[in-house]
Amino acid sequence: MKRARRADTIAKFALATSALLCVGAVAARRPPVEKADNASPIFHVRLPKAYRDWQLISVAQENGSLNDIRAILGNRTAVEAYRRGTRPFPDGSKIVRLAWRYQSSARNDAVFPTPQSFVAGAPTNVQLSVKNSKRYPTTGGWGYGQFEGGKATADPAVVRTCFACHSKLEPASDYVFTSYSE
Amino acid sequence: MKRARRADTIAKFALATSALLCVGAVAARRPPVEKADNASPIFHVRLPKAYRDWQLISVAQENGSLNDIRAILGNRTAVEAYRRGTRPFPDGSKIVRLAWRYQSSARNDAVFPTPQSFVAGAPTNVQLSVKNSKRYPTTGGWGYGQFEGGKATADPAVVRTCFACHSKLEPASDYVFTSYSE
Repeated sequence: MKRARRADTIAKFALATSALLCVGAVAARRPPVEKADNASPIFHVRLPKAYRDWQLISVAQENGSLNDIRAILGNRTAVEAYRRGTRPFPDGSKIVRLAWRYQSSARNDAVFPTPQSFVAGAPTNVQLSVKNSKRYPTTGGWGYGQFEGGKATADPAVVRTCFACHSKLEPASDYVFTSYSE
Repeated sequence: MKRARRADTIAKFALATSALLCVGAVAARRPPVEKADNASPIFHVRLPKAYRDWQLISVAQENGSLNDIRAILGNRTAVEAYRRGTRPFPDGSKIVRLAWRYQSSARNDAVFPTPQSFVAGAPTNVQLSVKNSKRYPTTGGWGYGQFEGGKATADPAVVRTCFACHSKLEPASDYVFTSYSE
């Protein structure tokens, strides 16, 4: 009887311990994140807080339905790869494209000799490319996300078009549109 | 005779000492710098080595004779003033405008649904505004410089036009064209 009670206590302890371990395991292996924690669909890319402090890679302007003016920034890993000409980009490289409405500036034009000045208007969206060759082997090692007002665009069709377009670029560019501007 | 020799020695010592002090004074009070040490004329503004690492303020595009696309970056003091809405900008603020030829991108247009893409071509010049209210009291506290290929543009007429144009802006903007883009 005494032995049985002891065995029972050990079994209960083992059960409790394994339950705790399971909870621990679940906590350590977080499930795939969706909208709730602001990650992009499919790639689960999050916008780092510091992205607005990253360094300038270059600028561009798109007409047509986009009608925007844009800046492309990179984290330290990406910018160093650009400056050294390293391709493919090393894992950890992050390239962010900020875009704003392309709009004529009446204020500037009043000062300049002729109407000629276009500036950044309201922000449109922010797109982020993250290099992780192990995590994204089927998309050239790149994961993609789009963010509007800081929130991940939830429609999976949006990020699905990213690599469809980037993959048309020459592989030597590592599927990246922007060149570094001195 | 002995007294005369002593007086002569003292005089020689005094002369040597004052000559040394003069050399020291010249070294401490460097003459106004021109082309030789790559400072702009009139304002003697130099381009800091780290400017290409500064943070993005905004982007713009100019047509007409300029025909460029540009990025405006700021040092930490300037960017913090922008983010906090501090005007006038505190002394030590530095704002740099990089510009490149505004050019159509055949590479991007081959991938996009319609021809629409413009990118940064060859660099044109870099213009720097430095806030120092004590040093530049007659130009709103701003000193100006222009640099081509890293070298200060030597023609004083170029920097003379800077404040002539900036001074047409409303004083509440502290004579700065660019607004911060989120």
